Amino acid sequence: MRMKISFIGAGNLATHLAIEFYSRGFEIIQIFSRNIANAKVLAQALNASYTDDLSQIYENADLYFVSVTDDSILQVIENLCFKPKFIVHTSGSISMEIFTKRFENYGVFYPLQTFSKMKKVEFENIPICLDANNLENLDYLTYLAKKISNSVFFIDSNQRKQIHLAGVFACNFVNHLWVIANEILEKQSIPFEIIKPLIQETFHKAFLLSPASVQTGPAMRNDEKVIQEHIKLLEHDKNSSDIYKILTKSIQTYKK
Amino acid sequence: MRMKISFIGAGNLATHLAIEFYSRGFEIIQIFSRNIANAKVLAQALNASYTDDLSQIYENADLYFVSVTDDSILQVIENLCFKPKFIVHTSGSISMEIFTKRFENYGVFYPLQTFSKMKKVEFENIPICLDANNLENLDYLTYLAKKISNSVFFIDSNQRKQIHLAGVFACNFVNHLWVIANEILEKQSIPFEIIKPLIQETFHKAFLLSPASVQTGPAMRNDEKVIQEHIKLLEHDKNSSDIYKILTKSIQTYKK
Repeated sequence: MRMKISFIGAGNLATHLAIEFYSRGFEIIQIFSRNIANAKVLAQALNASYTDDLSQIYENADLYFVSVTDDSILQVIENLCFKPKFIVHTSGSISMEIFTKRFENYGVFYPLQTFSKMKKVEFENIPICLDANNLENLDYLTYLAKKISNSVFFIDSNQRKQIHLAGVFACNFVNHLWVIANEILEKQSIPFEIIKPLIQETFHKAFLLSPASVQTGPAMRNDEKVIQEHIKLLEHDKNSSDIYKILTKSIQTYKK
Repeated sequence: MRMKISFIGAGNLATHLAIEFYSRGFEIIQIFSRNIANAKVLAQALNASYTDDLSQIYENADLYFVSVTDDSILQVIENLCFKPKFIVHTSGSISMEIFTKRFENYGVFYPLQTFSKMKKVEFENIPICLDANNLENLDYLTYLAKKISNSVFFIDSNQRKQIHLAGVFACNFVNHLWVIANEILEKQSIPFEIIKPLIQETFHKAFLLSPASVQTGPAMRNDEKVIQEHIKLLEHDKNSSDIYKILTKSIQTYKK
């Protein structure tokens, strides 16, 4: 008998995950979303039912993925009218313990990736961070995760929060620095593409060796003349100038 | 008759550039370096002469690349005992005007890339930023640059400085954020590799659309709960905590 999965949530992650499991032969029986249009679109792609009413969620799924915003997870759990056979959430920052008081079989299934609905992702290389309330359930999630990815990790709630924090530095903040770089280039009518090869090489080197060992730039070689010139170039932009100074200081501190 | 090129400098950039031109059929006649061992190693790979004495630099090259540290460029130029036929430097932050008083034919040949001696680079996709004191010389440099790269730009000294500044944000600072992310993961015994797919996807999205349009994360969605939790996780690391706060604030400011 095929395993039956339900999704609570129809956002970016829920959509990609549901489609991936469906394409691997799992049966998706129902999609819940407070936005009925979203639920319908996803459900139709999966030959599943859909609902926007928590009390109408089928009780016969083997596994429920709660994949809603962090703020809504608790509310969803509190308002479930039955005890699911097995329930997991997919969040990087929510502890697994939110399930403890209510349920018997639970865990976390956190794909460490950024998802946009319009952009297809290959799950094969996406790290899946798993946690569960006992070893048997962890084995079960491992079996599932390995159906879609070659990169499966057991990560407890504390570690998961630290990974999430590392992701904020390594991706969200990095992207913001690219926003600033792009802005500097745009003012000169220079396309952002011009620094793409430089970013790619920086990335390759960081993973070939380690980011600490490949740090370069004026801060790293204590080139005060260039640093002061850069700060002068930024004199009408206090925000970017402050970021320049704090990151320059941090690079110099790490170097010591 | 083959064009004759000399290199003043035998560092990372000089090494890669000299080897590239040599492999494209240009004649490298001499390598100068204050470090005679470096000059010798590079010269031997190119069937060239070498010297560590500025007064021994051959006067018959068609083009001289000055590829030394920013601090040394002026000193080298001031101590050249003859007027070279054509001279360029390869620096992102030094103005072309340092050549003006002394020479007749000069320019800038700035490959926008980070070079390490041990790692081969493909010049084909490296943006070459050119400048010259007149159009004829710019044409000449363009002809040369196109022999090694498909990505050739005319960039004046002011633009070049801004590109260099953008590169500091987009690469040096980005790499430093990866240092911090790696440190957070290492403390949990989690390999840095775990966030590689996430960084790759962030990079792909930023160039597919624009970094501003793909900004995500707790700061972007004003998720104060997660932000406060992250700041608490960093409470024993003032440096990282300060960086977290300033970049979070900046993302929120840009959003408005």
